[in-house]
Amino acid sequence: MTRDLEPEQIARLEEDGPRVVLLDQRRLPDEEVEVACGSAAEVADAIRAMVVRGAPAIGVAAAYGLALAVLRGEDLAEAERVLGASRPTAVNLPWALARMRDDPTPERARALHREEVDRCRRMAAHAAELFSPGTRALTHCNAGGLATGGYGSAVGALRTAWERGLLERVLVDETRPLLQGARLTAWELERAGIPHAVIVDSAAASLMAGGEVDLVVTGADRIARNGDTANKIGTYSLAVLAAHHGIPLVVVAPTSTLDLTAPDGAAIPIEERDPAELTTRFPARNPAFDVTPAALIAAIVTEEGVHRAPYERTLP
Amino acid sequence: MTRDLEPEQIARLEEDGPRVVLLDQRRLPDEEVEVACGSAAEVADAIRAMVVRGAPAIGVAAAYGLALAVLRGEDLAEAERVLGASRPTAVNLPWALARMRDDPTPERARALHREEVDRCRRMAAHAAELFSPGTRALTHCNAGGLATGGYGSAVGALRTAWERGLLERVLVDETRPLLQGARLTAWELERAGIPHAVIVDSAAASLMAGGEVDLVVTGADRIARNGDTANKIGTYSLAVLAAHHGIPLVVVAPTSTLDLTAPDGAAIPIEERDPAELTTRFPARNPAFDVTPAALIAAIVTEEGVHRAPYERTLP
Repeated sequence: MTRDLEPEQIARLEEDGPRVVLLDQRRLPDEEVEVACGSAAEVADAIRAMVVRGAPAIGVAAAYGLALAVLRGEDLAEAERVLGASRPTAVNLPWALARMRDDPTPERARALHREEVDRCRRMAAHAAELFSPGTRALTHCNAGGLATGGYGSAVGALRTAWERGLLERVLVDETRPLLQGARLTAWELERAGIPHAVIVDSAAASLMAGGEVDLVVTGADRIARNGDTANKIGTYSLAVLAAHHGIPLVVVAPTSTLDLTAPDGAAIPIEERDPAELTTRFPARNPAFDVTPAALIAAIVTEEGVHRAPYERTLP
Repeated sequence: MTRDLEPEQIARLEEDGPRVVLLDQRRLPDEEVEVACGSAAEVADAIRAMVVRGAPAIGVAAAYGLALAVLRGEDLAEAERVLGASRPTAVNLPWALARMRDDPTPERARALHREEVDRCRRMAAHAAELFSPGTRALTHCNAGGLATGGYGSAVGALRTAWERGLLERVLVDETRPLLQGARLTAWELERAGIPHAVIVDSAAASLMAGGEVDLVVTGADRIARNGDTANKIGTYSLAVLAAHHGIPLVVVAPTSTLDLTAPDGAAIPIEERDPAELTTRFPARNPAFDVTPAALIAAIVTEEGVHRAPYERTLP
C-alpha cells in the first residue's frame, strides 16, 4: 500500500561513471525521470534549476557532488565553490559541504544521506506528539521525502501521525509559482495513502476561518539562533493567518537546517528567482522565500525533540 | 498613451442578429477574441464559463441577455431563471435582472451598462481621496474595466489616483487559480501606463512586512448590510495580513453590489468551482470566494462616497 521512495531513488552517487543521479523533481508527478550529472558543476546546475530541491536534499546532492569531484580528480576548492553558490537560502548546502571537507568520499556522502533520513524519522516521532486524534493539518510546499532525501520533515511528521491514527486529512497549499505542493506533496501523500486535498495558497485563510485546520506544519530552509525561520514564500503568510485564528504553526526541520551564525531572520539571504517562473508577460517579482518571526512559531521540532520559545535557549 | 477599453468592447447587444457579443476574458492577454451569444442560455453559459466575469460586468451581461431574449421572443421567465442561476455569489446578477424586469429592452440594458461605468468614475474619485502622494498599492484579482463593463472599481481608483499623481506603483496578486491579476489587471495597468509588478498571492505578506505596501484596494462581489464583503478567494487572507501590518484595506464597489437582504457575510452563498481549475491530478478544493468581516475593512467606497464602520448605518 505505502510506496515510499527509497533514498537512492531521490539522489545517489554511481562510482562507475562516475556520476550523481537525481530524480528530476521538476517533472513529477507526470514523469519519473532521472538526471545524470557528470561533474560538480552539473550537480550545481541541477540544484540551481531545482531538479533537486528542499534544504536537506540540496545538502545531500551537494555532498554527492563533492564526492564526485574527488572521483573525477576535479579541483576541490572550485567544486566546493560552485556547489556552495548554487542556491543562497538553504543553510544545509554550506553545512553539508563543511561536513564533507575532511573526508570527501562516497562513503561520507552516503553516510550524510542516511543520517538525514534518520533525522527525519526521529523528528517525525517527536512532531507526532503535537497531533491529537482527528487532527486536520495544513502544509505548504514540499517538506517530504523528496525534500530531505527520504521520509520527509513536515511530511514525515504527517506520515508518523497517520500511522499512529492521529491524522484525519491534510490540506496541501499548491505553492506557487512552482507548485511543489500540488505536484510533490500531493504525490507523496497519495503514495502514503493519506487523505488530502490541494488548495490555492490564498484559500488557506478562509478554510482556517471555517474551522477546517487544526495544525499547520511546514519545513524550513534556514533557522536563525532566535528561531526566526526562512522557508518557501508563503510560510510567513500562513504563520500570520494561523496566529490570527489561534492555530499552532509547527516547523519541522533537522539540526542541519539550524544556522547558529545567524542571530535572527534579518541575517538570512532570501533568494529572488527569475520572474519568468510566474509565466506572466508583465513585470513580476519572485521572492522564493520569506522569514517567519519566531514569535509566530508554536514549536520547532528537530531530531533532538520539540523546542519552544525562547528558542535562543531551547534550540540544540 | 492610455488605451482604455471602450465599454462596448467588453459587452454589447447587437440588434441585427440579434446577439450579445462579449470580449473573451479567458483568452486575455494573449488574444483579443469575442464570443457571440445567440440566446439568453448562451449568455448564461458564457457567464458560467467566465468569458465575462467581475460582479458588475456579470450584471451588465445578464441585462443584455434578457434584452436579447425579448428580441428573440424567448420565454422571459425562463431566460431570467437561467441567467440568474449562472453564478451564485455576485449580487449584481439578480440586481440587474430585477432592474430589467419592467422594461427588458436594449435601451434599458445599455443604460444600465452606462450607469455602471459612470458609478466607477464616481467611486474612483471618492477612493482617490484615500491615496496620498507616493502610495504603493496592492490589489487582488481584477476589479478593472473588464470586471465592471468599463473603467473599473478598485482599478478605477488606481487610475484616478495615478492621474492625480498620488500612486507610485501597484503590486498585483496573480490570483490563482484563474490568474485574473496576472492576466487582466496587469494588462489593464500596462495599457494605462501605471507601473506594476505581478507577485504570487502568497508573497503579499512578506512584501507587507518589508514595508512595500501602503494600501490594499479590492473590489467586491457582494456586500452584506453590516459591511461583510464577499470577493475573490484570497481577499480575506489579504485583509487579515493587512490588519496585522497596520495597512488599510479598502473595498471599492458600486451600490449594485450591496445586498441589503443579507444581514452579514454568513448569508452570502460562496461558489465552489470545479477543482479541475487547479490543474492538479490529485484531489482538490476550489472555493472561488471568501468573506472578509467588516471589522477588517478600513473603508467601503461606493459612488455615493467613502463609508466607514459601523457600516449598518453608513452604507447607502
